[in-house]
Amino acid sequence: MSTAFDHLPHLRYAGPDATGPFALRHYDANRVVLGRTMADWLRPSVAYWHSFVGTGADPFGAPTMDRPWFGAADGMEGARMKAGAAFAFMERLGLPFFCFHDRDVAPEGATLRESNANLDRMLEVVQTHMARTGIALLWGTANLFSHPRYMAGAATNPDPEVFAFAAGQVKHVLEATHRLGGANYVLWGGREGYDTLLNTDLAREDAQLGRFLNLVVEHKHRIGFKGTILIEPKPMEPTKHQYDRDVATVYGFLARHGLAKEVKVNIEANHATLAGHSFEHEIATAGALGILGSLDMNRGDPQNGWDTDQFPNNAQDLSLAMLEVVRAGGLGTGGINFDAKIRRQSIDAEDLMHAHAGGLDCCARALLIAERIVQDGTLDRLRAERYAGWDSATGRAILEGRMGLDALAAHAEAGGAGPMPRSGRQEALENLAARFA
Amino acid sequence: MSTAFDHLPHLRYAGPDATGPFALRHYDANRVVLGRTMADWLRPSVAYWHSFVGTGADPFGAPTMDRPWFGAADGMEGARMKAGAAFAFMERLGLPFFCFHDRDVAPEGATLRESNANLDRMLEVVQTHMARTGIALLWGTANLFSHPRYMAGAATNPDPEVFAFAAGQVKHVLEATHRLGGANYVLWGGREGYDTLLNTDLAREDAQLGRFLNLVVEHKHRIGFKGTILIEPKPMEPTKHQYDRDVATVYGFLARHGLAKEVKVNIEANHATLAGHSFEHEIATAGALGILGSLDMNRGDPQNGWDTDQFPNNAQDLSLAMLEVVRAGGLGTGGINFDAKIRRQSIDAEDLMHAHAGGLDCCARALLIAERIVQDGTLDRLRAERYAGWDSATGRAILEGRMGLDALAAHAEAGGAGPMPRSGRQEALENLAARFA
Amino acid sequence: MSTAFDHLPHLRYAGPDATGPFALRHYDANRVVLGRTMADWLRPSVAYWHSFVGTGADPFGAPTMDRPWFGAADGMEGARMKAGAAFAFMERLGLPFFCFHDRDVAPEGATLRESNANLDRMLEVVQTHMARTGIALLWGTANLFSHPRYMAGAATNPDPEVFAFAAGQVKHVLEATHRLGGANYVLWGGREGYDTLLNTDLAREDAQLGRFLNLVVEHKHRIGFKGTILIEPKPMEPTKHQYDRDVATVYGFLARHGLAKEVKVNIEANHATLAGHSFEHEIATAGALGILGSLDMNRGDPQNGWDTDQFPNNAQDLSLAMLEVVRAGGLGTGGINFDAKIRRQSIDAEDLMHAHAGGLDCCARALLIAERIVQDGTLDRLRAERYAGWDSATGRAILEGRMGLDALAAHAEAGGAGPMPRSGRQEALENLAARFA
Amino acid sequence: MSTAFDHLPHLRYAGPDATGPFALRHYDANRVVLGRTMADWLRPSVAYWHSFVGTGADPFGAPTMDRPWFGAADGMEGARMKAGAAFAFMERLGLPFFCFHDRDVAPEGATLRESNANLDRMLEVVQTHMARTGIALLWGTANLFSHPRYMAGAATNPDPEVFAFAAGQVKHVLEATHRLGGANYVLWGGREGYDTLLNTDLAREDAQLGRFLNLVVEHKHRIGFKGTILIEPKPMEPTKHQYDRDVATVYGFLARHGLAKEVKVNIEANHATLAGHSFEHEIATAGALGILGSLDMNRGDPQNGWDTDQFPNNAQDLSLAMLEVVRAGGLGTGGINFDAKIRRQSIDAEDLMHAHAGGLDCCARALLIAERIVQDGTLDRLRAERYAGWDSATGRAILEGRMGLDALAAHAEAGGAGPMPRSGRQEALENLAARFA
Repeated sequence: MSTAFDHLPHLRYAGPDATGPFALRHYDANRVVLGRTMADWLRPSVAYWHSFVGTGADPFGAPTMDRPWFGAADGMEGARMKAGAAFAFMERLGLPFFCFHDRDVAPEGATLRESNANLDRMLEVVQTHMARTGIALLWGTANLFSHPRYMAGAATNPDPEVFAFAAGQVKHVLEATHRLGGANYVLWGGREGYDTLLNTDLAREDAQLGRFLNLVVEHKHRIGFKGTILIEPKPMEPTKHQYDRDVATVYGFLARHGLAKEVKVNIEANHATLAGHSFEHEIATAGALGILGSLDMNRGDPQNGWDTDQFPNNAQDLSLAMLEVVRAGGLGTGGINFDAKIRRQSIDAEDLMHAHAGGLDCCARALLIAERIVQDGTLDRLRAERYAGWDSATGRAILEGRMGLDALAAHAEAGGAGPMPRSGRQEALENLAARFA
Repeated sequence: MSTAFDHLPHLRYAGPDATGPFALRHYDANRVVLGRTMADWLRPSVAYWHSFVGTGADPFGAPTMDRPWFGAADGMEGARMKAGAAFAFMERLGLPFFCFHDRDVAPEGATLRESNANLDRMLEVVQTHMARTGIALLWGTANLFSHPRYMAGAATNPDPEVFAFAAGQVKHVLEATHRLGGANYVLWGGREGYDTLLNTDLAREDAQLGRFLNLVVEHKHRIGFKGTILIEPKPMEPTKHQYDRDVATVYGFLARHGLAKEVKVNIEANHATLAGHSFEHEIATAGALGILGSLDMNRGDPQNGWDTDQFPNNAQDLSLAMLEVVRAGGLGTGGINFDAKIRRQSIDAEDLMHAHAGGLDCCARALLIAERIVQDGTLDRLRAERYAGWDSATGRAILEGRMGLDALAAHAEAGGAGPMPRSGRQEALENLAARFA
Repeated sequence: MSTAFDHLPHLRYAGPDATGPFALRHYDANRVVLGRTMADWLRPSVAYWHSFVGTGADPFGAPTMDRPWFGAADGMEGARMKAGAAFAFMERLGLPFFCFHDRDVAPEGATLRESNANLDRMLEVVQTHMARTGIALLWGTANLFSHPRYMAGAATNPDPEVFAFAAGQVKHVLEATHRLGGANYVLWGGREGYDTLLNTDLAREDAQLGRFLNLVVEHKHRIGFKGTILIEPKPMEPTKHQYDRDVATVYGFLARHGLAKEVKVNIEANHATLAGHSFEHEIATAGALGILGSLDMNRGDPQNGWDTDQFPNNAQDLSLAMLEVVRAGGLGTGGINFDAKIRRQSIDAEDLMHAHAGGLDCCARALLIAERIVQDGTLDRLRAERYAGWDSATGRAILEGRMGLDALAAHAEAGGAGPMPRSGRQEALENLAARFA
Repeated sequence: MSTAFDHLPHLRYAGPDATGPFALRHYDANRVVLGRTMADWLRPSVAYWHSFVGTGADPFGAPTMDRPWFGAADGMEGARMKAGAAFAFMERLGLPFFCFHDRDVAPEGATLRESNANLDRMLEVVQTHMARTGIALLWGTANLFSHPRYMAGAATNPDPEVFAFAAGQVKHVLEATHRLGGANYVLWGGREGYDTLLNTDLAREDAQLGRFLNLVVEHKHRIGFKGTILIEPKPMEPTKHQYDRDVATVYGFLARHGLAKEVKVNIEANHATLAGHSFEHEIATAGALGILGSLDMNRGDPQNGWDTDQFPNNAQDLSLAMLEVVRAGGLGTGGINFDAKIRRQSIDAEDLMHAHAGGLDCCARALLIAERIVQDGTLDRLRAERYAGWDSATGRAILEGRMGLDALAAHAEAGGAGPMPRSGRQEALENLAARFA
C-alpha cells in the first residue's frame, strides 16, 4: 500500500492541442515513427533514485521533500513503503521501464552478506510489483560510490580488499539484474578517478579498472546474461577527475583492455555538458565507434558547472540528439532513462509528475522532429553529396590503401593550385533543421 | 644580415640572486639534475611562428608589431630577412632547438610544386644558419590549417583532392625535417574536426584521418626517418570540435588504427586547459599509456576560453608537470617547445627576450622543485605505500586474473563489514610538494 | 553598382508551411502581436561589419570569402563598392535598419582629420542609399579597438593623448549618427579593460572611463541628439578583462558616475554567455534596473569560450528572452541588430542570406511564443500569486520601511516555527512555457 | 573536555628550512612586514563550519569523518562537545580569530525563540572558551540557507513571513556578534537568487533585498555595533543565480540602495573563480571602489565548476592577491578567514591540522613576496610611469572636466596621426613579480 502518489492521475496522450496539466501532447506510445512505435524507439524508464530516494537536500541545505517512507521505523520497512509508492507512481506514468541501484531498493547492511540478503528480500517485493504492473527493468547497477569504503574508488581503490568488496557487490547485482530480466547492466564509476595526482598511480589504477571490467564481462557470459554491459561516462564530480571521462575516452579504455566488442556506453546529457561536449556529439561518436548503448536523459544548466540533472524541455535541442539515435539505428537493448530530478523547491507530489510528463513529451517531440528531417531527406542528401568525392576512384584508392604518400604527392603536384573550397552551408542546414522543429 | 634583434644581449646564467633584466636565475644548461643536465631534461626550443611570424593582430585588432621583414618587397626576400633575424635572436637566447611549420619559413606559392620549391630554397638558408649557430631542429610540421583549401579539414576534408594536397605537403615537410636532422615530426590537426555535426560524417572522417596517419608512418619508415611522429591534441579552436581532443582521445584513435606503438603525443599546456585538464594530468596520462613524446610549453588564462599561449611563469604550478616528466623518465626525442607568444601590447624587441628568459627560468625552476621532491623521496614513498596491498598475495592474484567474480565475492563475504578506509592525506601531500617550491 | 548580391532574391513572408530556401515562415512585418506590429517589436537591423567587412579569416586561417570590394584599387573605391553591395543586400532582406562603425564604412586615414573626411565623404554615399531604399540607421558607433593606438584602451588608455584621439573620433561619429537620423549611439569598450593587473591602475581607469562617458552625454545634449546612448557589455575578449562586464556591472558604473538615468545597455546574447549569464537574465536585469536599451542578436557556441557570433536558430530558447522584452514594454528606441556572422566555410553569397532569413524567422517565432505565453496568462498569474504576500499589510509595512528589525523579530517570534514552504513549481512552469513553443 | 584533537601538537614557527610535518616555515606572527606584524596584516581565522561541522559527505556520498560530537545523544550536548574540541584545536593552531554561523554553534530549535535560546546558551560556553584562550571573533553570521523555510530565499523570499523570520534571526546573531566583540558581521545570501526566471520577479526581489540590508545597517547603528557589515559575493551555487554575484555587482546594489558607504565586501577566492574572476581582480576592484572588507581564504579547482573550498597552497598565485591587499592599505577590521575544508578522504584529525598549517604558511609566504615586490619598488614605479601623462596639464584638464568633446577633438586633430603606442611590458612585469616568489 502506498500513499504519496495515489491521488495523482494517470498520464494519457491527449493530442498536441490539449491544455490539461497532465495531458501528454506528443508522447503517443503506439504511434509509428519511421517504422517503429514511439515506445520502441524511446523505451522510456524511470530512475528509482532521483524520484523515490531523493530528498531535496543539497550541499547547502537540508531535505525539503516529505515522503512517508523517509520516516519509516526501520530500513526494510521504509524500502517496502518506497517500492509500493514507486510502482504506484510508475503505473500512473505508464512507462515500460525502470532502473535502480542496489542501495535505492534495499538498505545497506552491516556486512556484504547482510546487504545482499536485504537486497534479495526486497527484490522479491519488486518482482511482485513488476509482475502486477508489467513494468520491466531497463538496467540495474551497484552503488559503488556512496559508502565511505569507496571514498578512494571501488575497482581503482588503492586497497585490493575494497576491489574485492566491490566485486562481490557487482556480482550480486548483476545476477539480480539477470533474475529480474533486466535488459542491460550499467557501471558508473563515480569514484573511479582521483582527487589529487599526488597520491595517485594512473597506470596501476588503469590496470585495476581493466581487470574489474573484464571480470564483469566474464561473469556475464558465465551466468548467461544476454543484456548489454554499459559504462556511463562522466568527467568529474564527485571526484576531481573521473577516468571514464567521455565516449572517446571510454573507447580507448575498452580498446586497451580488449573489450571494445563487449561493452557499450550509457550516455548522459548532463555528463556530456560537463565534459565539454554536446549531447548529440557524444551519441554520434558512440554511433560511429559502434558502442552506442543507452541514454540517461536529462539536461544541465548552461551556467552551472555541476550535474544539475534537470528534466529536458527543449525539443529542438534534443532533436539533434534523437537524429543521431535514428542514424545509429536506435538504441538496441538500451532506452531512455530519465536520470533527472525535480528541483529542491518542487516539493509537491504533482511536481514529480509534471517533470516526467514534460520530459516524456520533450523526447517524443524531438523524435517527431527527427522523423520529419529524415523523411524530408534533404539534410542527409546534402551531407552525402558533400562527401561524394570519396566514392570516386581516387577516393576509394586512398581509403583502400592503394595510394601511398608518394603517389598522392604526385597526384597533388599535378593538380597545381589544388581544389577549390566549397561552402559548408552551415546556416542553410541549421535553418533546415529548425524548419522541422 | 638581421636587424630587429641585433642590439639584444645574450642570455647568461647569473645565479638566483641576479637582478639584471636579462639574467637567467635558474636555467643553467650544464647543471646536473637527477643524473642529466638541465639542457638534456628540457631540450628547450623556440617556436618560429609566434616569435618571428606573429604580428600582434587579434580578431579585433590590426598588427601592432613592426619587424623589418613584414615590409619586404617580396615573400622570399622577407623569408630570408626573417630567417636571419630569427637565428640572430635564437643565438642570443642560447637554446639548442627550434621548431617550424613550412609556411613560417617560406611563402606559399601558386601551386604545390612552387610552394615546395620555395620551402626548399629557404631550407638551404636555414641549414646554413643551423650549421653556423649549432641550433638544431626539434621538430618540423606542415601548416594544414591556414589556407582556405583546408577550411573544412585536411585529412578529414570531404574532398579527397584536399587530402591528396595535404599528403603532398606533409610528404615534403617530413622529408625536409629528415634532411635537417629533425628529432620529431608533429601533426596538429587544427581543422581536423567540425563546425557543425549537421554536415559531418564522423565515421568517414575517422577513417580518413586514420588512413592519413598510417600513410605518414609508412613513409617515415620508407625514408628511414628515425624521429618520432607526434600528434598534438587540442579540443577546439579554430573548429568547434577537434578530433584529437586530449591524450586519452588520441590514444583511442591510435589504438583503433593500429598506431599505438608508432605515434606519441606532443602535449600543450594551454590545450590541456581548454580540454578541461591540468597539464600534469595530460603528461601523467601519456606517461601511463606509453605515448609521452614532447611538450608545447605555455599557459592559458584561467578566465579566458581561448588559446592565449602565454609564457609560463609559475614554477610551483609547473613543478607538478615536471614531476610527471621525471616519473616518465624524460621526454626521449622530445623537448620543451615554447609555443607561446608575447602579448599584443609587448611591441618592443626586448619583450620577446623577456618572455623567453622568464619562460626558461620558470621551466628550470620547476625542474629543480621536481628534483627536490624526488630526492626527498617522501612523496613517492607515501604513494607506493598507499598501493602496497596490491603487492600482497591477494592483490597479485586479482591482477593476474587468478580470482574471478565468484572467488572475490566469497573473499569479500568472508570479510564481513569490509576494509576500513584510510586517509588520502591530500593536504599533507600538497604541503610537502609546496615545501620544495 | 553592386555585384556580389544582385542575383539574390528578395525575402518574402510565405507562411509557416512554405518550403522554399528563402521563404520567411514566421517574420511577417505587419502582423500585429500584442498590440504592435512585429516590425515595431523587433526593429531588426543588419550589422555592416560582419556582413560586408568580414572576410572569413580567423586566428588560424586566411580569408575564405571573396567579395569584389576586397580587391578594390583604393580604400575609398572599395568603400563605395561595399556600400552599394550592402544596400543591395539589405534591400533584398527588407529589414528597416542597419548599424555601423565608422571604420566599416570608410577607411582610416593618415590623421584624424583625414579619417573624418573619409567618413564624411562616404556618409554622403550612404545617405543616398538610405534615401533610395528607406533603410534607417539603428545606431552608429566608433571603432576604438582595431587600430594599434588603442591597444591599451581608448578612454582607459594610460596615455591621455589616446583619450583625446578617441574623444575626437567619437565626437565625429556621434554627430554623423545624429546627421543620419540614427536612433541610438553605442559604445562598446572592446579594449577598455586590461591584459594584466600588473600594469593597471583600476581606480585611474575607472575615473577616465567615467569622464569619457560624461563627455559623450554632455555632447549629445549639446547637439540635440535625441537618440539613446548605449553601452554594450562584454566580459572579456579581446582583453583578458573588460570593465563593462555585464548589465549589473554597467549599472554600478553608471550609478557611480551619475549616469544611470542617461545611458542604457545594448545587450548581446553571446556576450551574456561569455559572462556566465543567460540572455534572458541580462534582459530581465536591465528591465528591472530601467536600463534596457537594445539587443545585439546572435548566439554563442555552448562548448566554445569565445565570441562565435552565430545567428540564432532556437526559437524556444529565444522565447524566454523575448518574453522579458515584452515584460519590459519593448525596446524603445532600440531594436534587434543581427551582430552575427556566417561561418568561415559559408563562402557563397547565398549563405549570408540564409543566415539572415533564419535569424529573422527565429526572432519572429520567439516573439510569437512569447505572445502565446502572455495571452494565456497562466505564467504571469502564477508568478504574481507567488508574491501575493507582499501585497498584504505585513508585506507593505516591510517594504515601506514601517517595520524595523525589532518589530520583525517580535513578529517572527510570535509566529513560532515559521511559515511553511510552498512549491516553486519549476517543472510545471517549464512545461507551460514549452507548450507554447 | 574535548577528545578529537587533544593529541595534536601546537603549531610553531620553525623557520624556512624546518622539515617537521607541523612546523610553520613562513608564518611568524610577530615578524614585521611593511610596518605591521604578520598577524596584523593577516588576522587569520578558523571557520567553525568546515572544520567542526563538516562530515565529509558530498552529493554522492555519506559522511566519512568521525568526530565524537556527531554521535552525541542530543543537539545541545553535541554542541558543547564540539565547542570544546573546536577551541582545543584552535589553541593548537594558535590563530587569533574564528568565525561562525549561528547553526554551527547551536542546534536549530522548533521555533525561532527556541533557536535563539539554544544559541544564547551555547554562546555562554563559547565566551568562556574565548576568555580562556584569548581567541577572538572575526565575524558572526546567520545561516539563512540550510533550513527548508529558506529554500526560495530569505530576504528575497516570495513570502514576507520568511523575510520576517530571517530578520528575527539576523537581529539575534548581529546582537550576539556585538556581545562577543566581533569585528564584523557577514551576510552571505546563499539562497538570495533564483532557480528559474519563470517564477521570479527581479525588481520585487531587489527591493526586498535592499530593504533587508538597510534594516541591518539601521540596527547596527541602533545597538552601537562598531564592526563592519560585509556582503560576501558568490555567483551561483546552491541557486542557479545569486544576486550578489561579484564585487562590481554588489557595488551596484549598494549604490542603488544608498549603502555604498555603509557596507563592504568579504571576498572569497573560490567565489571569484566561479564568477570568472581572479582573486586579485576582486580584491583590486573592491580596493578601487573603497569597499574592501575581509577575505575568505581558499582556492577552487580550476577544472571543477563548483565550490571546492580547498586550502590555498600556491604562494606565488596568492602573492598577487596579497599585493592588492597591501596596495589597499590592508583589511581594516577584516581578516583572512580559512573558509576551506579538508577533502572527503582526509579523515584523520592530523589532516585538519596539516590543512591549516599549509594554508597559513601559504598566506605568510604570499605576504612576504608582496613585501619584496613593494620594497623593490620597480613594479609600482613602472605602473606609475605608465600613467604619467595623466599628471600632465592635458591629463589634469581632462579629468577635471575642463576639456569638453569639442576641445578634445580639436586637440586630437591638431595631433595628426595620434600618439605612438608604447609597450605594455607584460612579460617583463610578470618576470619581475615571479623573481620575488
